[in-house]
Amino acid sequence: MAGAHSAATLLGPGDDAAVVAAPDGKTVISIDTQVEDQDFRLRWSNGYRTTGFDVGWKAAAQNLSDINAMGATATSMVVSLTLPPDTPVSWVEGVADGLTAGIKELGADSCSVAGGDLGRGREISVTVAVVGTLHGGEAVLRSGARPGDILALAGTAGYAAAGLALLESPVNVELLTPEQRVFLDLQCRPRPPLAAGPAAREAGATAMLDVSDGLLRDGRRMAVASNVGIDLDPGHLARLAAVLRPAAELLGMDAAGWVLGGGEDHGLLATFPPGFQLPAGFTAIGSVQALGIDEGPGVMIAGRSADTGGWDHFAH
Amino acid sequence: MAGAHSAATLLGPGDDAAVVAAPDGKTVISIDTQVEDQDFRLRWSNGYRTTGFDVGWKAAAQNLSDINAMGATATSMVVSLTLPPDTPVSWVEGVADGLTAGIKELGADSCSVAGGDLGRGREISVTVAVVGTLHGGEAVLRSGARPGDILALAGTAGYAAAGLALLESPVNVELLTPEQRVFLDLQCRPRPPLAAGPAAREAGATAMLDVSDGLLRDGRRMAVASNVGIDLDPGHLARLAAVLRPAAELLGMDAAGWVLGGGEDHGLLATFPPGFQLPAGFTAIGSVQALGIDEGPGVMIAGRSADTGGWDHFAH
Repeated sequence: MAGAHSAATLLGPGDDAAVVAAPDGKTVISIDTQVEDQDFRLRWSNGYRTTGFDVGWKAAAQNLSDINAMGATATSMVVSLTLPPDTPVSWVEGVADGLTAGIKELGADSCSVAGGDLGRGREISVTVAVVGTLHGGEAVLRSGARPGDILALAGTAGYAAAGLALLESPVNVELLTPEQRVFLDLQCRPRPPLAAGPAAREAGATAMLDVSDGLLRDGRRMAVASNVGIDLDPGHLARLAAVLRPAAELLGMDAAGWVLGGGEDHGLLATFPPGFQLPAGFTAIGSVQALGIDEGPGVMIAGRSADTGGWDHFAH
Repeated sequence: MAGAHSAATLLGPGDDAAVVAAPDGKTVISIDTQVEDQDFRLRWSNGYRTTGFDVGWKAAAQNLSDINAMGATATSMVVSLTLPPDTPVSWVEGVADGLTAGIKELGADSCSVAGGDLGRGREISVTVAVVGTLHGGEAVLRSGARPGDILALAGTAGYAAAGLALLESPVNVELLTPEQRVFLDLQCRPRPPLAAGPAAREAGATAMLDVSDGLLRDGRRMAVASNVGIDLDPGHLARLAAVLRPAAELLGMDAAGWVLGGGEDHGLLATFPPGFQLPAGFTAIGSVQALGIDEGPGVMIAGRSADTGGWDHFAH
């Protein structure tokens, strides 16, 4: 794979393994795979054709987001590509270019592609493993949210879901307005807020994860890991939904559902102790609640369980 | 993924990323994928059915071998599984068990599975990324071989190729003798010599790689990276081939071809300065030669280029 080495990559491609600096004596590591027809289609209903560049960018973004969600900074990636024999060379080069461009444009300056592996298969599959550094700090886990904490979001919510709905719609991609097109672009090339993760760790975030499956599902994960209630503020949710109106009105779909159920924006959901100044990029969207007797961990909207239709008043 | 954590895994599965110790301030990293019908068949010509355990073991072994080839010790793995929806649960559990068993039985005591990712696809695909430590030492590269060095091999050569030939033959797996079966088992569950890599580094190996594509191809990689000639001793090659006779005679095939062209045993090819004591597990199989004028880097057998039929006298 191409790309100049970052300072963290001590030994790049060409040997059986790469060597990456870990100056504080520990390494954060994650892995993620995208598969054709599961995570992307080469051609969508609306006529959009996914490029190799898109897939490379998204692979970079998804993996960088996992490192970001720990409060860490990515230092290196290794990539394994599985390709059908008839894959055009230009498409494969696009993957490499998209990886490099995603790393650069998302601001992961310390990161580079240190090595890779190439093989054949019946379908396109791209797996990236990424390592990163906590700069001597401690990882921010899902399990640290405490009652009374502020719940905050960095990055967008529902953009990628709106973009997916546009891709799967019959509305020709060429007819989208720039305001609609931005959602499609975000689905194909997510923009996780990479400065926000380390900033949240330094600011004293008590819990954090990246929103890859939607506020409800990922909020529930944090609630379960921390054994608390996660209460979303309907006013903030409504503001997040309002931004999606250009796509929702075109398709006659529910923007609230995208905000609550849509992942792949790779925003960060984090909690901070009460009274703390939120770091740049974060907006308060709710709070952490103690569990009552006989109450299990979960997500609420204005105090009503979101699992049992409690957000209907917001969604409609 | 299951498995108790090793001491090196500071944070295991459950968050967006794992955290692994890197006490000497650097991490060795590699990635490798196995795909159904490319790297294994669920059912072979000879009737053998590949188990999830086999695939998990092989994924562990291949990746551990890449770390071994740098002279490093594996500390952690992350795993991404892509599975068709109809994959039996027992098969998937077998993958997890095979990974854990491979790590343990191959002696990678410092390593555990720290996290993973699970997705759908049309074909089974297993990607593992592995990190490791050099214990404060320097990685052994492919490029360090010097004229006059001893060329040495640790581990078997040609076993996996003989095993593949047995799997692809019409000879029913149930009819194999124990002496023949050992090759098939090695193809399905490779046994890279994991103590040998760090031992070679400590003993002063000048160059090293793992033999994943055969002595000729991997020897050529070392020759090119080091800009030298790699000269194999025909007497040693004959001894390696003789061990494969139980399979070669059954199939009427050429054991010498397996020794020279067969990979997947994941032995180590390393070079040591002249007069050095070879570490345990290594056997001298040749030497490193200076290039003459107008001579390019490559592999020779008894001084004759192996690329141009120079080993015919050995093969026949």
